[in-house]
Amino acid sequence: MFSLTVRGHMMIAHSLPDPFFGPAQSLHGATYVTEVTFSRPDLDEHGVVLDIGAATSYLEEVLGSLRYRNLDEHPDLLGMVTTTEAMARYVAEAVATRLQHAQPDHGIRQVHVVLRERPDAWAGYTLGCSDAGA
Amino acid sequence: MFSLTVRGHMMIAHSLPDPFFGPAQSLHGATYVTEVTFSRPDLDEHGVVLDIGAATSYLEEVLGSLRYRNLDEHPDLLGMVTTTEAMARYVAEAVATRLQHAQPDHGIRQVHVVLRERPDAWAGYTLGCSDAGA
Amino acid sequence: MFSLTVRGHMMIAHSLPDPFFGPAQSLHGATYVTEVTFSRPDLDEHGVVLDIGAATSYLEEVLGSLRYRNLDEHPDLLGMVTTTEAMARYVAEAVATRLQHAQPDHGIRQVHVVLRERPDAWAGYTLGCSDAGA
Amino acid sequence: MFSLTVRGHMMIAHSLPDPFFGPAQSLHGATYVTEVTFSRPDLDEHGVVLDIGAATSYLEEVLGSLRYRNLDEHPDLLGMVTTTEAMARYVAEAVATRLQHAQPDHGIRQVHVVLRERPDAWAGYTLGCSDAGA
Amino acid sequence: MFSLTVRGHMMIAHSLPDPFFGPAQSLHGATYVTEVTFSRPDLDEHGVVLDIGAATSYLEEVLGSLRYRNLDEHPDLLGMVTTTEAMARYVAEAVATRLQHAQPDHGIRQVHVVLRERPDAWAGYTLGCSDAGA
Amino acid sequence: MFSLTVRGHMMIAHSLPDPFFGPAQSLHGATYVTEVTFSRPDLDEHGVVLDIGAATSYLEEVLGSLRYRNLDEHPDLLGMVTTTEAMARYVAEAVATRLQHAQPDHGIRQVHVVLRERPDAWAGYTLGCSDAGA
Repeated sequence: MFSLTVRGHMMIAHSLPDPFFGPAQSLHGATYVTEVTFSRPDLDEHGVVLDIGAATSYLEEVLGSLRYRNLDEHPDLLGMVTTTEAMARYVAEAVATRLQHAQPDHGIRQVHVVLRERPDAWAGYTLGCSDAGA
Repeated sequence: MFSLTVRGHMMIAHSLPDPFFGPAQSLHGATYVTEVTFSRPDLDEHGVVLDIGAATSYLEEVLGSLRYRNLDEHPDLLGMVTTTEAMARYVAEAVATRLQHAQPDHGIRQVHVVLRERPDAWAGYTLGCSDAGA
Repeated sequence: MFSLTVRGHMMIAHSLPDPFFGPAQSLHGATYVTEVTFSRPDLDEHGVVLDIGAATSYLEEVLGSLRYRNLDEHPDLLGMVTTTEAMARYVAEAVATRLQHAQPDHGIRQVHVVLRERPDAWAGYTLGCSDAGA
Repeated sequence: MFSLTVRGHMMIAHSLPDPFFGPAQSLHGATYVTEVTFSRPDLDEHGVVLDIGAATSYLEEVLGSLRYRNLDEHPDLLGMVTTTEAMARYVAEAVATRLQHAQPDHGIRQVHVVLRERPDAWAGYTLGCSDAGA
Repeated sequence: MFSLTVRGHMMIAHSLPDPFFGPAQSLHGATYVTEVTFSRPDLDEHGVVLDIGAATSYLEEVLGSLRYRNLDEHPDLLGMVTTTEAMARYVAEAVATRLQHAQPDHGIRQVHVVLRERPDAWAGYTLGCSDAGA
Repeated sequence: MFSLTVRGHMMIAHSLPDPFFGPAQSLHGATYVTEVTFSRPDLDEHGVVLDIGAATSYLEEVLGSLRYRNLDEHPDLLGMVTTTEAMARYVAEAVATRLQHAQPDHGIRQVHVVLRERPDAWAGYTLGCSDAGA
């Protein structure tokens, strides 16, 4: 199995409105360093998993829609508790959607996202693309 | 699959009493930067893999029992060759035991531990929790 | 010259209400990974720059007063544009004040703070303690 | 499952002669920070995945044959487009071959290689050793 | 003293044609992770050392003129032995020239550049701007 | 001013026999990731601060004399409290002595050592070489 990872980041505000989260219930923020890994069993005709420029643009489009925002008021996230885990899934699905739309025959089998919220804690989500093209 | 990782460290002395280990047979030490990753297929009712405070406390309890110790004289490790690989398993099992005891219905399927002993070498152990609650 | 550095972090929300800051005018947030370096020309009677536990507690007290907060509403920061540079100075001065109060004879000549806001950007502030004890 | 990872690096020149690669068609270069992870379900008689000295020497032999070279003129790579993904496979296979030759009963089930080409991008390849000894 | 650092990178080929450099005499390459730190004694009217967008654009212009190039054939570097130290000076001077041209009243007193060529080695150059504006 | 930094590490055991150090009074250990920075105002005739191979060998000789040892029993350190700060000075002085012996006309003005003992704490020592050759 081959993989390609690209990394970006977003700086956002949010709150976690559930007593479970203690002090993180109040409005605070994070720099989410975001890694997306695309995997496939063989390389494409150019000898890559995916064009690295395209991979970066899919990630940057998603991060650009969240960056410098208060997630509590983001129209796509209304009613969602924006934990790091939940945001990892959101980013994975949004990146996979852009990939599927732009390159229906992409051959990617898995999209894995890691969101690093601080040096000592991070969360991830793995999205299978078993129905993907190729 | 979702994952949550927390990181800590311990500074310990030990020796590896087997000629196989060359100079590491003598008493020396290490800072083990320790990462524990908990995985599960879906999120709990709070939208997380595990309460990050609980995850940190399970790890810190285990690291606290080893930190600033000579592992050669640690009662839980008597007769064990404390290689990085073996210590990764020890930490994974000890963390999983604490998790299982404190939250029998935790839903975690896997506990993965990485012990980084220096910038250019690290070891890991993956523990399945297939019989775990939920 | 000797130095000791301890590192912590804080996750905060804020806005930068000046058209100069473009999209960062809106409410967003950051994980500020925060390093404080204490320097002095010789070591104390214990052979250290400063008790590492004390150094950590000074930093953690300051970070604890900011962590999980919206800096726009923090009483100590009213009217201040909380740029990374300005926050580096705030942390340096607050840490130095705690040090001076707890250990008037500390012998520290300089407190240097770095706030890392994302992998590709950080800011620092160096505070001289020329009038400090010792 | 246990794992052991060792890390090295190589500094090479190469070009990617396909219009698909845009500016990377011209002769340029990279520092490839290279991680090799060996995995097996149980530990050997010394309590390790593999002798860390042997693991390092397999990796260094492979990196040493590439380091300070122009990959476009390397006899082992003629006609190959040396993308990061392709080089990850080359390193994995070359390391596995050395392992297999030196220790036919190695018990390793998987060799995973990551090549980090810059802070924000890296590629990987996972090689199964299902037919390996033990 | 306040400082602001921005980071970028460039992937280049070059050779060091002097027997002193041993195997690095042959054509090889590097990923130079490049940090530029701007320092000044006080903040500007916006509460920053320098507009972070401008700082990034000065660095990116310089890196963009070198990226994906063979430095041995770069017109600005003819006859220069492109050691990491020498390239650190080149980048510092080129960034300072762009700063001086775009913002003659910049108030920056020092430009410090670090070029990281691999995890275990890096070089730096500090350029005083004592004659700079403000 | 130009600088060159090389990095290595050592894994050692030691104790800090002073009640001031709390739990670190007992025998424990550390991986000290060790960076040495050499500085000089101009480059030598090869366009470098120092031959990187020589710089690495000075550092490795010093680390090699400490690595896999119990510092409490090391003949060069008898009676010394081996705090991170004190070890930073020891390494700086030992590296500078080797440099001075091997290259009396080295032109280096300063040797700066950082010892990283864990991700969140490190110490440094700066040694002036004002009387050094050239």
